[in-house]
This record gives sequence, structure tokens and C-alpha cells, in this order.
Amino acid sequence: MRGLVGVDLGGTKTAAALVEDGGVLRRALAPTPAQDGPDAVLALVARLVSEVADGAPYGLGVGTAGVVDPATGTVTTATDHLRGWAGTPVRDRLAGLLGLAPDTVVVANDAHAHALAEARVGAGRGHRTVLVVAAGTGVGGALVEGGRVLVGAHGAGGHLGHVPSAAAAGLPCRCGRTGHLEAVASGEGLAALASRYGVTVRDGREVAALAASGDRQAGRALDTAAAALGEAVGGWLGALDPDVVVLTGGMTGAGERWWRGVRDAAARTALPVAASTPLVPALLGSDSGVVGAALLSERAASGSVAVR
Amino acid sequence: MRGLVGVDLGGTKTAAALVEDGGVLRRALAPTPAQDGPDAVLALVARLVSEVADGAPYGLGVGTAGVVDPATGTVTTATDHLRGWAGTPVRDRLAGLLGLAPDTVVVANDAHAHALAEARVGAGRGHRTVLVVAAGTGVGGALVEGGRVLVGAHGAGGHLGHVPSAAAAGLPCRCGRTGHLEAVASGEGLAALASRYGVTVRDGREVAALAASGDRQAGRALDTAAAALGEAVGGWLGALDPDVVVLTGGMTGAGERWWRGVRDAAARTALPVAASTPLVPALLGSDSGVVGAALLSERAASGSVAVR
Repeated sequence: MRGLVGVDLGGTKTAAALVEDGGVLRRALAPTPAQDGPDAVLALVARLVSEVADGAPYGLGVGTAGVVDPATGTVTTATDHLRGWAGTPVRDRLAGLLGLAPDTVVVANDAHAHALAEARVGAGRGHRTVLVVAAGTGVGGALVEGGRVLVGAHGAGGHLGHVPSAAAAGLPCRCGRTGHLEAVASGEGLAALASRYGVTVRDGREVAALAASGDRQAGRALDTAAAALGEAVGGWLGALDPDVVVLTGGMTGAGERWWRGVRDAAARTALPVAASTPLVPALLGSDSGVVGAALLSERAASGSVAVR
Repeated sequence: MRGLVGVDLGGTKTAAALVEDGGVLRRALAPTPAQDGPDAVLALVARLVSEVADGAPYGLGVGTAGVVDPATGTVTTATDHLRGWAGTPVRDRLAGLLGLAPDTVVVANDAHAHALAEARVGAGRGHRTVLVVAAGTGVGGALVEGGRVLVGAHGAGGHLGHVPSAAAAGLPCRCGRTGHLEAVASGEGLAALASRYGVTVRDGREVAALAASGDRQAGRALDTAAAALGEAVGGWLGALDPDVVVLTGGMTGAGERWWRGVRDAAARTALPVAASTPLVPALLGSDSGVVGAALLSERAASGSVAVR
């Protein structure tokens, strides 16, 4: 028997876990030496993996911040949260450090790993076509079909926040474009909206709290953010026709008003035949990163195919 | 050896073909008795299939107007072009008429069949993730991943025209909603746009011709329609990250100005990492319907799985 090891590599902390049947058997966690460069980060990952694997043969999946080339497991784009990370051949370097065959290691974007866990063993369990929408600091997610993430040609699939949104017309997006959904529907976008409406806040969470306490302008910002996301989701209901949409990320904690806004906008926007598709909250907690990463490695571990 | 038979069932005519390696070996064509009810239509399909199959064992794929439930092969939604078609259990009825096992017959939406042909043996050949965008009377298409159409939960996947578009704000869509891309980017939408700009036309083709001859308002309408489609495509480049986008349908004949408008809008909208994904014209002619339908039946014919 081979175990599956999943790694969730973030800008702040890195977790590794031995996973079986979607559950964590053993885990290890450490702060990511994000500013010390790729060598230090990869050495930490290798140490955590060895710790949880404990000598047994295993398949390894890694979810990391940044866009990952599905053909090579190399990070092609990343922010400065991980210094020098873009260009790192994570799959081949880790395989080398751990003495594994490169084709038993799968590296993917961390949002893809989270989404795969939700789709396979979380709120999407039992469904064939699952759209995971993550609305937090940014807006992302993944389309999971038949248990596989559609990572796309560049590993960029699931950048759901970078679609045009009327509410975001003219507003700058973190990606460098303007008018993207993320500029209004993410936590940062919500805070920026509220500021334009004259409400001084540090983040989206404060906007939600103010809205809940009756602040009209905060409520208006929250409604705008929810409607923008809901309209986009409504469009995807017809375009992709998922069995279920799983919503995850910090914005899903913004309260009943936000959920109602998202659901109402989705239902009134969607092609009628798909308008009653359920929008449900994610079920998995912080383990979804390592569990999803382990699931990514399943096919590689069974010797069939790589992530794409 | 089993042959593959594909049927392209439209409101005006019905074609059947025996298909091998993506090419047509033998074909038959007849007007669809669209107003005579499902029995007449199904009898015609059975006759055309028998004609091209000529007694040999075969797998059968049918692309039909309307939304088709992927689990049962029953038409769930259809317009009145085919009287009484909604509710018809096309898969089971055809299997009965032809003496085939129901699981060797696959029924799907005709746009899905066209898209599968383009993705597999047309402009998407050799690519894993192919987004086919059909802009004609309406706007539709399909996402084809690894040679399979993502038909979705209700068989409605690929209704790409029913996403929100800023240019269509407040405009009615044929589906009953408002603000959908199709209301400006389809041929009908383009004609309606031109009318609002004071240009009297019968259809989108006339708008394109007037624009080419220098009519400024027709040009403005054409630019608006092209930009709206391009912005939506740009969003999908990040959300789905296809290897290639294949554009098909009548609007692709609207000339270089339309193509430039679509490509420019897609490139300036898309997430930078996916912005240079090629947008290319479809390669297959009128055979794509029957070829795609035959390809739909491949898996069923090999005894593995149904369309979903």
C-alpha cells in the first residue's frame, strides 16, 4: 500500500499531512521561510513530508501559492509573499530532495487543491460537476469535473475573479486589468467599495459587521458586492451547468444578508433551466489544503497520469 | 468492427452519416417534419440512420435542438421550431425503433455535437482544453476537456450567451432574463443594437455589410457586439484557461473588423497569464454536426460510459 502525502504551502505557514480516505492520519506544520528563498522553502517542505510519511512509500501532492505549469510542476507566476518563488521547478526539486520519481509528485495551485478537497470529500461530494467559488482576499476557485480539477493550459483555470463585472467598471484589479469581478466581490474589493460610499474600514469583515449593525452605506456596499458575485455565478450556472456551486473563503462569513444577495442575484441572472442549482457553503475546515493536495497526487501515485 | 452513425437533427433539416476517423463515409439528408410531431421526426431519423448504416452494427449519436437530459437522453426544453419536442425520450424511442440497446445511443444538444467535432477533428485538434464559442442567431458553445463535452448537470453546459454583459444591461434576452451577452453579441442582438442606433436592418449580416461599406452607426453597433463578446471571452480565458478558443457561427463571417474587435477586447480583459491564448476560426463545414454526433457515441459504442 502507498500512502498519499499532501502539502499546503502558503506565504505564512506550510502544512504536510499523511492522508487516507480523505482524512488526515498524521500532520506537521511550520512557518514558511518565505523571505529566505526557494531553497529554504523546499528544504522545509521535504522535512515536513519525511516527518509525516515516516519512511513508507507514498505519492506526493503539493498545493502552492502561485500559478503552476501543469506540464512541468514549475511555478510560473507568484507574488512577492514567497521571495523568488516564480520560476522554481517545485516538482523536480522536491522529487530530487526526497528521492522520488518526478511522476509521483504533483504540484498545483493551492486554490485548486482546496477546491478538489471540497468537491471530492466536502460539500461537492457525490456530484460530477462542481464549481467551487472562493471569495476571500481575492476571488478564485476551480471547476472540478469527475473528480479532476480543470487546471487549464497554463494552470490558471479557476481565476473566476477576473471576469468582467458591470459593478467594477473602471476599477483597477490586482492583476493589472480593470473592471474585474474581484475588484468589488473580494474582501479587499468590498472594503474599497465601502470607502467610496464614505465608510472608513480596514477590511471587508468590518464592512459586514457595520452592515449587520445597521449602517446603511456599509449595507449598500455589501449588497453591491454580493450582487456582483451572484450575477457572475448566475452566468456560470448556464455556461458550465454545475450540479452544485460550493462557496468558500472569508466572504462566506459575511452573514445571511450576503448569502441572500448572492443567491438572489444568481437565480435572477441564470438561464432558467439552471437557475435552481444549489449554492452551498464549503464544509471542510483548514485541512482542505492538505487533503486536496493529497488527492491531487492520487492519479500520479497510481501511475496513470499527471495533473492534466 | 462497429461503425459510428451521427445524426444532426435541426428544425429545418435532418442529416445522418456513417463516420470513420472523423470523416463521413456515407450520408443521407431530408427535411425535418418539424410540425408533424415527435413520432414523425423520430421515424425520419430511424429511416436515415438505417440508410447510412446499411445493416452493419453501429453506435448512434444524435445532436438535436433543445436541452437534453444527459442521464436519460430525453429532451427537456425545446423551442416551437420542433412541435412537441420537449419531453420526448429521444434515446429510448430511437433505440426501440432501431432495435438498439439504449446504452449504445447517445443524445445531446446539437451545439455540443458541433463543438465536439471542432475540438476533436477541427480547429481544436491536438489540444486538451478547447472552448468553442458559437456566435450566430444566438450565442452558445461548449467547453471540451480531454475530448469530452462538459454537458453539465442538466445538459445545459455551454450556454455561454447567458452571462451578464455590461453592454446588454436592461436588454431582454430570448431566455426570458435581461442583460445577457446574447442580447448584443448574437446576430439578432447586433441587428437590435443597430436599430437602436438608427440603422434599419433585417439581420446581423446586413449590419456587417453596412459597416464594411462605411456606415458609422452600423460600425458602432458591430464594434459594440464584438467588444461585448471579446470581454466575455477574455473572462473565460482566466476562468477556464483553455488551450485555444474556437469561434464559430454566422458572426464569424462578419469580417476582419469584428475579429479584431473580439480579439482586442479579449486580450485587454483577460488575466495576463492567459491573455495570449489564440482565438481561431472553426475549420469544419456543415459536416461538423453529424461528425460530432458520431463522436459523442464513441464511448457508448465501446461500452464504457454514457455522455456524462
